[in-house]
Amino acid sequence: MTTIQDVARHADVSTSTVSNVLNGRADRMRPETRQRVEAAIEALQFRPSKLAQQLKTGHTPLLGLLVPSMSNPMYGFIAREVETFAQDRFGLRLLIGSTYRDAAKEAAFFEDMLSHGVRRVIVISSLADERHLERAVERGMSVMSYDRRATLGQKTGVGHVTPDNFEAARLAADHLIAHGHQRLAFVTVSGMTMSRSDKIAGFRAAAEAAGLSKSAAVLDGGTLDEYGDSVIAEVGRATGLQLAADPKRPTGIVALNDLMALGLMAGLREGGLRVPQDVSVVGIDGLFLAALSNPGLTHVQMPIREMAHAMVEAVATDGAAPREQLFSQVRLVERESVAPPPGPKKSPSKARP
Amino acid sequence: MTTIQDVARHADVSTSTVSNVLNGRADRMRPETRQRVEAAIEALQFRPSKLAQQLKTGHTPLLGLLVPSMSNPMYGFIAREVETFAQDRFGLRLLIGSTYRDAAKEAAFFEDMLSHGVRRVIVISSLADERHLERAVERGMSVMSYDRRATLGQKTGVGHVTPDNFEAARLAADHLIAHGHQRLAFVTVSGMTMSRSDKIAGFRAAAEAAGLSKSAAVLDGGTLDEYGDSVIAEVGRATGLQLAADPKRPTGIVALNDLMALGLMAGLREGGLRVPQDVSVVGIDGLFLAALSNPGLTHVQMPIREMAHAMVEAVATDGAAPREQLFSQVRLVERESVAPPPGPKKSPSKARP
Repeated sequence: MTTIQDVARHADVSTSTVSNVLNGRADRMRPETRQRVEAAIEALQFRPSKLAQQLKTGHTPLLGLLVPSMSNPMYGFIAREVETFAQDRFGLRLLIGSTYRDAAKEAAFFEDMLSHGVRRVIVISSLADERHLERAVERGMSVMSYDRRATLGQKTGVGHVTPDNFEAARLAADHLIAHGHQRLAFVTVSGMTMSRSDKIAGFRAAAEAAGLSKSAAVLDGGTLDEYGDSVIAEVGRATGLQLAADPKRPTGIVALNDLMALGLMAGLREGGLRVPQDVSVVGIDGLFLAALSNPGLTHVQMPIREMAHAMVEAVATDGAAPREQLFSQVRLVERESVAPPPGPKKSPSKARP
Repeated sequence: MTTIQDVARHADVSTSTVSNVLNGRADRMRPETRQRVEAAIEALQFRPSKLAQQLKTGHTPLLGLLVPSMSNPMYGFIAREVETFAQDRFGLRLLIGSTYRDAAKEAAFFEDMLSHGVRRVIVISSLADERHLERAVERGMSVMSYDRRATLGQKTGVGHVTPDNFEAARLAADHLIAHGHQRLAFVTVSGMTMSRSDKIAGFRAAAEAAGLSKSAAVLDGGTLDEYGDSVIAEVGRATGLQLAADPKRPTGIVALNDLMALGLMAGLREGGLRVPQDVSVVGIDGLFLAALSNPGLTHVQMPIREMAHAMVEAVATDGAAPREQLFSQVRLVERESVAPPPGPKKSPSKARP
């Protein structure tokens, strides 16, 4: 195996010069020297051992990513963006864990990452309490938290990247209002997180601006045992079925996210209603699956890729990138799931398409 | 920090006794001794450093998983099953990489895993050539390859887990034939892999048994630049659109997998056809999304969870578990995407549901 000594000998420099080149500290080096070292690395096909690097620095070129569940297509997409960018830009590999939003599982993941020497972590968690992340920062980790803001007035070592959830839900509700809907609902699941309360506030703001506060409801689809993947679609489906049986149901619904919207449409359909003729539905996220659904799901597209890259940048450069970022580029993508509300004299349709 | 020496002192045993307990070599130890060591570990909250373990054994308790793309919901589901089982059963963490079925990316991933000391790898790849996996085995890695069999007559150190792809496609085609379909097609993408050719063989076998060989076609939806996620649905959609414009189109279609089936249904619908009234579609995989689609997608459910667990077991126990496994428990799940073919006098419907 080629060693750093071989490279030094081949380039006729000291091993510390080679080390400086390898670790990006070549800015005060003469260009010829650097080129000679690089040529030697190339000629000898030298690959520095990551294990040796780790022993020296205590770090491994690994990035930890905590998601509620990898089988949720949205987290799968984020994971792919994080991984591709981390690998291409920073040569980092991804250590990934699903935690089902369980505090003990999250804590265990951090312990394991510390003992693996992983110092950079991106966390997608909806646990209200961020103290375990703060403790990780105190122990020397660089932590970015997704889809939440720093708690107002609290000092934090944890960085945050979030889309404008308020604006996303406001846009979605506005779109329904523009189509003439007056009986509106925001459908969510149990458990209040920062991103959910921001969405609810945006939904309510749109209703209020249109003078519809009294006919705009927040519906809680219930509690989940397991979390974050097919289950959220199941809650949507059960809620859709319930709504189909309720003559006073809303005619325009904003769903917490796309997966819930897909479940909601399935439940409404099972209950004998048509989307959008009987009920209009808008999702939030930007899943590619929304384009395949029948009817095509109108949704608010979040800047997922940009946020994934920003989080990688922040943990990889350890403080050089901004650590509190709000991504406001949310936009409505119109498809087929929104239409004007059914007329008042219309009897509920039982026809299935 | 608590060390192994502290534990040994507390339990009044030698450090090698503690080490034996930690490494599961306590079978020839007196139960009292083991309990004393375990009590000391508990009392001192001793957590063995994984870095120290790695230095000693050259291994880290990490499992590598290579997938074509994490944003494909099927791979996300497999990844979740692999990770949960590996963590709960063997205390392994998951190092994951998307490779877009690119040979250079796959090779780079193996290099990185070697240098991280990762010795256990599960690979989901459709690269025809498995030599890079063989080389990894020669270098001391334990490798399981998903969705393919060992090449006949070739000795291999790589283990394989595959569902019965032949039977899955046969079941799907049989289901269409049982509904009276005579013009059949299997829709796939460019690039022949072992699992694809097995599916095609199963499809052809069903057609042949029904005397329909001449009216059963294999349709290639084309080449993909990027691979394995939304793109496969896009190929399905484009194929659906093409078929909708073709008066001699098949009436019963088996799709390569569920994601392609969902795309296919979207494309047929865009082209003005109804599923299942005009064209029936059967998927293969078992995505939970199939239950949300409209119409609900009839598909063949593969034993994904069982296969994921078997792969983990095989790499974690390094040879103790069988390394060539065919999972034959495939079953058809009926939903709404299959109906009898349209009658011969019927003019093609242009109505959209």
